[in-house]
Amino acid sequence: MPGAQIVGATGYGGLGMIELLLGHPEFEIASLVARDDAGRRIDEVYPHLTDRCELTVQAPVDDVIGSGCDVVIFATPDGVSQGYAAALTDAGMRFVDYSGDFRFGDTAAYARYADAHPSIGDAGHDAAALLDRGQFGVPELFGDRIVEAPIIGNPGCFAVGIILGLAPLFAAGLVEGGTVTVDGLTGSSGAGKKPSPLQHFSHLNDNVVPYRVFTHQHVVEAEETLAALSGGEANVHFVPHLLGTTRGILSTMHAALTGPATRDGLLDRYRQFFDGHPFVRVLDVPPTLKGTLGSNYCDISLEVSPDGSRMVAMASIDNLLKGQSGNAMQNLNLMFGFDQTAGLGRLPLYP
Amino acid sequence: MPGAQIVGATGYGGLGMIELLLGHPEFEIASLVARDDAGRRIDEVYPHLTDRCELTVQAPVDDVIGSGCDVVIFATPDGVSQGYAAALTDAGMRFVDYSGDFRFGDTAAYARYADAHPSIGDAGHDAAALLDRGQFGVPELFGDRIVEAPIIGNPGCFAVGIILGLAPLFAAGLVEGGTVTVDGLTGSSGAGKKPSPLQHFSHLNDNVVPYRVFTHQHVVEAEETLAALSGGEANVHFVPHLLGTTRGILSTMHAALTGPATRDGLLDRYRQFFDGHPFVRVLDVPPTLKGTLGSNYCDISLEVSPDGSRMVAMASIDNLLKGQSGNAMQNLNLMFGFDQTAGLGRLPLYP
Amino acid sequence: MPGAQIVGATGYGGLGMIELLLGHPEFEIASLVARDDAGRRIDEVYPHLTDRCELTVQAPVDDVIGSGCDVVIFATPDGVSQGYAAALTDAGMRFVDYSGDFRFGDTAAYARYADAHPSIGDAGHDAAALLDRGQFGVPELFGDRIVEAPIIGNPGCFAVGIILGLAPLFAAGLVEGGTVTVDGLTGSSGAGKKPSPLQHFSHLNDNVVPYRVFTHQHVVEAEETLAALSGGEANVHFVPHLLGTTRGILSTMHAALTGPATRDGLLDRYRQFFDGHPFVRVLDVPPTLKGTLGSNYCDISLEVSPDGSRMVAMASIDNLLKGQSGNAMQNLNLMFGFDQTAGLGRLPLYP
Amino acid sequence: MPGAQIVGATGYGGLGMIELLLGHPEFEIASLVARDDAGRRIDEVYPHLTDRCELTVQAPVDDVIGSGCDVVIFATPDGVSQGYAAALTDAGMRFVDYSGDFRFGDTAAYARYADAHPSIGDAGHDAAALLDRGQFGVPELFGDRIVEAPIIGNPGCFAVGIILGLAPLFAAGLVEGGTVTVDGLTGSSGAGKKPSPLQHFSHLNDNVVPYRVFTHQHVVEAEETLAALSGGEANVHFVPHLLGTTRGILSTMHAALTGPATRDGLLDRYRQFFDGHPFVRVLDVPPTLKGTLGSNYCDISLEVSPDGSRMVAMASIDNLLKGQSGNAMQNLNLMFGFDQTAGLGRLPLYP
Repeated sequence: MPGAQIVGATGYGGLGMIELLLGHPEFEIASLVARDDAGRRIDEVYPHLTDRCELTVQAPVDDVIGSGCDVVIFATPDGVSQGYAAALTDAGMRFVDYSGDFRFGDTAAYARYADAHPSIGDAGHDAAALLDRGQFGVPELFGDRIVEAPIIGNPGCFAVGIILGLAPLFAAGLVEGGTVTVDGLTGSSGAGKKPSPLQHFSHLNDNVVPYRVFTHQHVVEAEETLAALSGGEANVHFVPHLLGTTRGILSTMHAALTGPATRDGLLDRYRQFFDGHPFVRVLDVPPTLKGTLGSNYCDISLEVSPDGSRMVAMASIDNLLKGQSGNAMQNLNLMFGFDQTAGLGRLPLYP
Repeated sequence: MPGAQIVGATGYGGLGMIELLLGHPEFEIASLVARDDAGRRIDEVYPHLTDRCELTVQAPVDDVIGSGCDVVIFATPDGVSQGYAAALTDAGMRFVDYSGDFRFGDTAAYARYADAHPSIGDAGHDAAALLDRGQFGVPELFGDRIVEAPIIGNPGCFAVGIILGLAPLFAAGLVEGGTVTVDGLTGSSGAGKKPSPLQHFSHLNDNVVPYRVFTHQHVVEAEETLAALSGGEANVHFVPHLLGTTRGILSTMHAALTGPATRDGLLDRYRQFFDGHPFVRVLDVPPTLKGTLGSNYCDISLEVSPDGSRMVAMASIDNLLKGQSGNAMQNLNLMFGFDQTAGLGRLPLYP
Repeated sequence: MPGAQIVGATGYGGLGMIELLLGHPEFEIASLVARDDAGRRIDEVYPHLTDRCELTVQAPVDDVIGSGCDVVIFATPDGVSQGYAAALTDAGMRFVDYSGDFRFGDTAAYARYADAHPSIGDAGHDAAALLDRGQFGVPELFGDRIVEAPIIGNPGCFAVGIILGLAPLFAAGLVEGGTVTVDGLTGSSGAGKKPSPLQHFSHLNDNVVPYRVFTHQHVVEAEETLAALSGGEANVHFVPHLLGTTRGILSTMHAALTGPATRDGLLDRYRQFFDGHPFVRVLDVPPTLKGTLGSNYCDISLEVSPDGSRMVAMASIDNLLKGQSGNAMQNLNLMFGFDQTAGLGRLPLYP
Repeated sequence: MPGAQIVGATGYGGLGMIELLLGHPEFEIASLVARDDAGRRIDEVYPHLTDRCELTVQAPVDDVIGSGCDVVIFATPDGVSQGYAAALTDAGMRFVDYSGDFRFGDTAAYARYADAHPSIGDAGHDAAALLDRGQFGVPELFGDRIVEAPIIGNPGCFAVGIILGLAPLFAAGLVEGGTVTVDGLTGSSGAGKKPSPLQHFSHLNDNVVPYRVFTHQHVVEAEETLAALSGGEANVHFVPHLLGTTRGILSTMHAALTGPATRDGLLDRYRQFFDGHPFVRVLDVPPTLKGTLGSNYCDISLEVSPDGSRMVAMASIDNLLKGQSGNAMQNLNLMFGFDQTAGLGRLPLYP
């Protein structure tokens, strides 16, 4: 049974992977590594894990990263995995990274991303020579390549909904000018575990806060991917909104169409596009945030304007699952030749 | 001290008006009328009014509507006020209506609205001859006419944010093709007091539910008003979303511009446009849902895309105040020659 | 693979059982029966089940109840299962009932319960002769009897937390006068799927509403069980509070002790009492509502007053799992000789 | 028009006072003082104050405290006001303090409080000689003394509900043994503006977290006050619970009675006790958290056990108003001879 090492194990991203691995039939947890809470048992840090996981968190010192495991998951911020990438790949160790470090195949695309990112800027990439060994980890689009890739760049949470929600349209060249406007609504957990004014309960409860209008870095990977699908341009005008809820992202995506379309026709197109992809459900009704909560599903539906010239696609995911750990688990399953649904059968928690 | 009769007094719309009148220096409540809870004291229906209002709700029988008062407020669904309109105007009694009955100056516009409305359809208007005596009640645009109007059609909650959020652009002809895409996020209270599956707590809590995509009837009054401002077309592609929160509407509005613009330039334009209008605040930061909660403010801000070709305007209101009762109170103040802020000084409740 | 028929399949109680059976390695769903939504596919009623369950809901007509299955689960209100009990037991069909119909072994105890219940009163019991064949379904106390019982009366949601949270104390006769005061905090889902004013989102969001002070019927089964454990009296003074949250019950239980105690001593006692019971976790820190959300755990902790004379025990459960469907599943596992954790491995959903 | 200086102006306590003073007919804000955000305009710190207050926050340097004003409000943590008390009282400047510094008339009582407080311990009091010049600020009990007092120790938020909810019983000696058990449910805003793990949205949303069981320092002032009312003992066994909501405290208080009582009899007693006190409302139905939200009311009701031997009193307040700034404003009104309701007329915000 292959063992996975989780780096950044005490953040929400690491926690999500711990929970999935604990319930996985084919993987085990090799070790937990994190700077925060190093030396503590994980069930002390997260009491809801009591009786389920008693591992002690190790500090990321010496040669601990990549040691005693079969794969490494970096549930860490931008800039961490690139520091370990050369040593790991030299040693033949594969890894999945949650950050943007390996989502882009070349330095030009990475630079666009880094430039949009609030904390990277022009700091460069410590492992630029390995960028082309990283595979952007959207299993529904790149499953074949993920199977073989030494490095997986797991997508950003907003990018998942936007890419899956628009891929069938871009792949068919149906978006006028390649231009879409997207409003993304996200729960607070995407910002992680660290307290901050924006995530302070008294501020966020019952609130909606638009932020980083036109400038969110996840747009870059969405545009790159959608443009490649269409062979043309992709311009995503994106406004993220932070909601007073814990989990979930609902993306509402507007576009003019290159020619008239019907709702049924487009729904058919979506269903064909995602045929055989167990985590995308194309619904007849608008997806809801809670309809995917706690599961790895991406629920999608759409409506067409009365004159057939425009459409709105809507996609719902749990930002911590299909938007992060669940998608990473799906990638791990592909990398190790397991069924991609292994360990990911959990239904949405409703009501 | 003029007395106001509230018809539909036991719904949230009526309650909002009760609360405002109780704190108003110039008006008093003449009587409360409603079908639901008729015969009960209002502080039994709403215990939070204990010690503040002990009026008994009257049934809408016989000649009670318009009797013993100086103005009538219809906090009622579509179709109610039109049945009383002729008698009231014949008697010289002015009224404010919360529904769409008198928002449109002619039957063609009303028919477009009725057609989009989920329950009116082609039922016609019982007082079509009086449509031209009704004034659409957006005080920031039509203050002069509101002062004299015998009938005020108070705007729909979504329309308030969209109209105020886009008026400066349309007035200057800056919106390319007159086309905007709008995502509206609303709290549950806009749906009123009556329990329903969509408003059931277990369903709505932590949820986001898109609904009536492309077909919400409030778009009609927004398009009519914005087109009149620009002298051209206005096409509002609108997706309302129901949120798991009680109060508030945040509207995010996207448009391509007819020419390049800067954020500062547009903010200046907005500030000039709303100069002298005390309830519109043009902010330097994105408005938040909670920033207007419990107040009559409409907070607006905007961002421009890096290339200056597109903009996003965002507007926040409390749907039960600036989106309903507060705006109606503002209209009442204008109609009776009071300062339009009278009784509306309440600050947002934060945190 | 034994098949379970769910009666009342379209309520939250039935839904919970559907979800557990879908993920269960040893059971399958034989059929879904309900009055509401009969004739519809269950994934139309609950879109989050899309791709997971396509069964059509059958109306409870003719001989459908108990037909084509190995066990029946009544996820129905009080009074339903008692009407089918004789026919089912005559046919040798075992069943689990979510209501109070079979929680009490004799008519006197049932009468106390019925009297406290808001809708039963003195209506009597249609299958009183079968009361002694029913077993109150608390697996941690009555596991041996559950294995053999033809009828299981699954406990009320509030009773689960109170009984488990106090059992070690009553079993040891440590509660002064057998008297406890309990404040119970419950999410809204315990009230089920049907819209009502108290469950209306705009009313309940951000609210806390005490109700049925001193009179909730779940107290009866708690008092019966605790008294039997201690061989003395049990008086539970209980105040339920409805919270603006969807799932979970936190019970805070206060008692004077018959003699001085220490926190460590009592925690040890609790740990011994629940040794071997996988769904009760005795924590060193106060349990939280969210610490059990989505799981079948009952988390318990306690504190002792500085002088050692009093204690507070706190218990958290997910009201729809350990408080309802999860506990019923645990009973089903025992009845069919499976590991009691089968199909119940889901971790709490945190954050 | 007297001017009030607010020290600690940028926390939630200071903000509450700013909002009340802005709407007050008799007071004005003299100046805002705070360590955090000193040098910034208050409407930058809190954008919801835009157009309503443009004062710049001053740092608490040199002689700024007490300068240019008629009264000082310390919206500061324990230990702050005691450092300024001598200088202020020497200069004849009265002040209201939100902390526990001046809630106790002698060092013994203060020591009990300090000992229970998580951060004071045995640090002593810097102005112990002035303790007897401080008046505990519960207007409903000590209105006459508040009028004249040079220093007001505004009560702790939990203490307000407990004291008002139990005062009529203790004053009549009706509580058996003077012993009550209290569960307090509080919104998050009581913990202030500073981000922390417990107040992190993703942790607190949908959660209930018991904390400081048996040890919360607000119990001390409640016990002191209730014991003085009864002339006997008062033992408050208290469990605070943090809820996933922003504002409000609901206290549920259990007691055995010294003799049999009826609900009507006790409600009458409560109504007489609070006659003439405009902010206490004795309701016929259980108070709700939302029934007082945004107002200065304390809503109280009670139930008696079927045998008449026990009762449960329930009290709801907005923790930031009647539990803090609103109560302080009430004290200020009394101190300056204004109607105690001046500036406090705001109705609860419902729904």
